[in-house]
Formats: sequence, C-alpha cells, structure tokens
Amino acid sequence: MTTRQLTEQILKKKSFLCIGLDVDLNKIPEHLLKDADPIFAFNRAIIDATHHLCVAYKPNTAFYEAYGLKGWFALEKTINYLNKNYPEIFTIADAKRGDIGNTSTMYAKAFFEDLSFDSVTVAPYMGKDSIEPFLSFKDKHTVLLALTSNQGAYDFQTKTIDGKELYKQVLETSKTWANSENLMYVVGATKAEYLQDIRKIIPDSFLLVPGIGAQGGSLRDVCKYGMTKNVGLLINSSRGIIYASKDEDFAEAAAAKALALQKQMQKELD
Amino acid sequence: MTTRQLTEQILKKKSFLCIGLDVDLNKIPEHLLKDADPIFAFNRAIIDATHHLCVAYKPNTAFYEAYGLKGWFALEKTINYLNKNYPEIFTIADAKRGDIGNTSTMYAKAFFEDLSFDSVTVAPYMGKDSIEPFLSFKDKHTVLLALTSNQGAYDFQTKTIDGKELYKQVLETSKTWANSENLMYVVGATKAEYLQDIRKIIPDSFLLVPGIGAQGGSLRDVCKYGMTKNVGLLINSSRGIIYASKDEDFAEAAAAKALALQKQMQKELD
Repeated sequence: MTTRQLTEQILKKKSFLCIGLDVDLNKIPEHLLKDADPIFAFNRAIIDATHHLCVAYKPNTAFYEAYGLKGWFALEKTINYLNKNYPEIFTIADAKRGDIGNTSTMYAKAFFEDLSFDSVTVAPYMGKDSIEPFLSFKDKHTVLLALTSNQGAYDFQTKTIDGKELYKQVLETSKTWANSENLMYVVGATKAEYLQDIRKIIPDSFLLVPGIGAQGGSLRDVCKYGMTKNVGLLINSSRGIIYASKDEDFAEAAAAKALALQKQMQKELD
Repeated sequence: MTTRQLTEQILKKKSFLCIGLDVDLNKIPEHLLKDADPIFAFNRAIIDATHHLCVAYKPNTAFYEAYGLKGWFALEKTINYLNKNYPEIFTIADAKRGDIGNTSTMYAKAFFEDLSFDSVTVAPYMGKDSIEPFLSFKDKHTVLLALTSNQGAYDFQTKTIDGKELYKQVLETSKTWANSENLMYVVGATKAEYLQDIRKIIPDSFLLVPGIGAQGGSLRDVCKYGMTKNVGLLINSSRGIIYASKDEDFAEAAAAKALALQKQMQKELD
C-alpha cells in the first residue's frame, strides 16, 4: 500500500486510528480460552467488529512470540485474515527489529514477504546499514523509532548529541538514507509538545503515534502539533480498545471504544 | 547458568568461542534440503561436531523468522536439542529486542521461559524500562548492544552526547539499572581499539564480541584490550565456521574452523 492510498482510506473512513493487537491470554475473555486458537479467535472478533472504524492494525510481535510456535501461528493467521478479508487495511508488524545488513535483510523478508505486512517498526541504534535493507522494498514502509512514549525515552533519546537531541539526529540522519521516502516514524503521544520541532525536520512523513489511552497521551495535542495536509498521522490504541470488556460482548465493547476515538478523529479532520 | 559456571566452562574447554547459528537455506549443503527440517538438521550436525570446541551457541532470530512458522519451529527444536544434550553450553538468542515495559516482559518470557535460552540480546534506544524486565530473571543474562561491529555504529553510537560518546553513556547508564549484574554487552571485534575505554566503565562484565572472520576483526586485539581475570569474553563466529564447506563434509569442515579458533583462544588463555 502507498501512503497516498493510506491517506485516501483515512479521508474515506474519517479515521486515522490504528488498533494494536497485543493479545495477552490473561486478559482476553475466558470463554475464548476453550477455542483451539484463542489468540486468533480474539483477533478475528476484534477485527470484524472494528475494521470500519480504523485504517490500520498493529500486532506487537512480543505478544505472539511469548506463546512460542502457537503464538507465531496465530500471528500468521491474523495477517493472512487481514490481507484476505480487508485488503484496504494498512498493517504494521510492531517488531522493533534492527541488525547488521545481511541480518536485517532476513528480518525484512520475514515481515514483508513471509508474513506480507505493509510495514514494520525498527530501532535506529545500529544506524544506516541496519535500516536500509528494509527501505529497499517497494510499497513497503519502515517505521523508525524516533521519540518513544515510555519514560526510558529520556535516558538517551532526548539527550543532546553534538548540540542536538539524539531523536532529532535520528530524524535528520535517516533522511539521507537510500529510499528514505519509505520511512515513517514512531513518536509517542505522551510527548506531543515535541511534535512542532519534529515537523520542522520531517514535515510530511507519516507518524505512528502510540501512547493514547492507557499511557495518557492527548489526541487533541497530537493533532494540533502533528497533523499535515495529508493527515500524516496514525494514532494507535491497544489496551484501551481491545480490553474494553472481558465478557462475551468484548468485540462490541471494543467497537464502542474505537467509535469514540473515530468520532474525535472525524472532528479533527473536519 | 551463572557467569561463574560460564567461566568454569571456558577454563575447562580452553575456549571462549561462541558459534553463530545463522542458517540461510541458500548457503547450506544441498543434500540437506531433502530433509523434513533442513534448518534443524544443519544445526544438529554443526552442534554435534563442534560442541566440545565452544562454550556458547547464538542463533540469530532473523534467520528463523525469515522462514516463518517452520523457521520458528526449527529454532525451538535447536534450543531444546542444546538444552537436552549439552546443558553445559551457554545459549544466546540474538534477537536485539526492546520495547515498553509490559511488552519487554513478553519478549523476556518468549526467550527465557518459552524457549529457555540463557540470554538474549537487546537494544538500548528505549532506555531503562525497556531493559529492566529482562534483568529481573534470575540466572538469565541480558546482552545489551553497546558498540556494534557494523559501519552504521558510527551513525549514532560513537557520536558525543553530553560530552561523552553515546555507547559510553549506554554503558554507564545501564550500570544504574535494577539487577544490572545480569548484564553483558555487545562490542564488535572490528572496534577492538575501543575496548580499553570500555573496560574502564565495565571492568568485569562479559562481552559478546561479533565481527571475527567475515567482518574482519582481530582475535588478538580483542583479547589484548578486552580480557579480564575471569576471561569476560565470548567471541562469536558465524559464517566463518558454519559455511566452511557446502559439501557432505560441512560439519567436519566447521569443526576444523572452530578448532583453529579454539587453539588461538587456548594461547590467549595461557
């Protein structure tokens, strides 16, 4: 999917919501645990109930790997289900990978070819040759960690490096990489006040913004400082939507939470 | 496994060699492709032929994820085979993970509990709360990227942050984290000249050192600048050992390469 198609979907659905599929078996409705594949059963129900309210889904790979082989199988079924039934949806493998060149190529194959995600999140610490293998895939997107939503972001990301904060160095340096037009960036909603500065460096790039809901970020502030003429935002909510209820009505409850966010987003788009 | 037990193994085997199990189906002997699980068949043969010459194995997860479900299954079989048949071996999941706290906990469960690795590599960009969940596991080790072997290490890691290179900031800051005694660090052999400075910050910690062989690092220099009274080094070779031959004799050829490195290591230990 191209960013132009993504923007079209956003304008059509009046939503730039991304739903995080971070499935924890301790948190999903108990009746699902009897299913042969509770993780996929949960995801399918959430997707069927919310796909018209969002433009993207983002499974975080940690939640699948924690369940070993059956977790990886559930991830595979989830992305296949999305690609088959809702091809208009933008898919993000939240994997935060990054390694030396030949190894990053294998990660890119894993997420872009084997699993057919539209995008994957990556960490910048290892620099250019750890990211460029991802960028070389046509119509795929590489979402680089810039300024994350957690407290630990202040340990290194906001420290001053050669006169400029590390996350700004990451943004500026990444623009010099081959096929950098395939980059998107992670910027936490908990740090919306930084978005003005960030938009000076990357005025048009799409931002994946976690941290709304459970982590306390403000949708209003993110839009105020981060929205571009092509929207340029994907705002993620995971726990706030998918765990809205632990009962049989969990999918409807999730849809209600997603609808509330979609309505706020519609206001921002208008 | 404790670091004391690891040092005992090193002194007993007169080797601090770690063998990287980065299995690429395009590079393994063709006759193995007929096997129901070529990746595991390859690993088992390599392990059986080399286990007495090394103290650690390090599968890089990228090479398994690239083959999807069957890759993850091969990884699971490989770690189970190691734990069952060679419990004295130290195992490293080279995964370079790191995410917000609750997500890192899931990664820690994936590698320490579901797969039962002794250690996992992690990336520092997201800071303290992305690493501490790994550190809370008793007798497990968290191998933090400090100064990596690739060219991209110069993009951010060696840049000066508040008067000190980023990789030194990472080393110093990491020492303040809870259970930091469970930390090891990745330092590339291609940057052996940095080891003197690194040892001033972390005089006793184990270092996982990639970059010998295909990447051009020197074993001699790494030992000269990096060895401690408890050895404190695990030197990794992947491609240089496992792809020594593409013929039926691949395991023997790998053992010959491993033996050559073990002999150099024995000299350094004496």
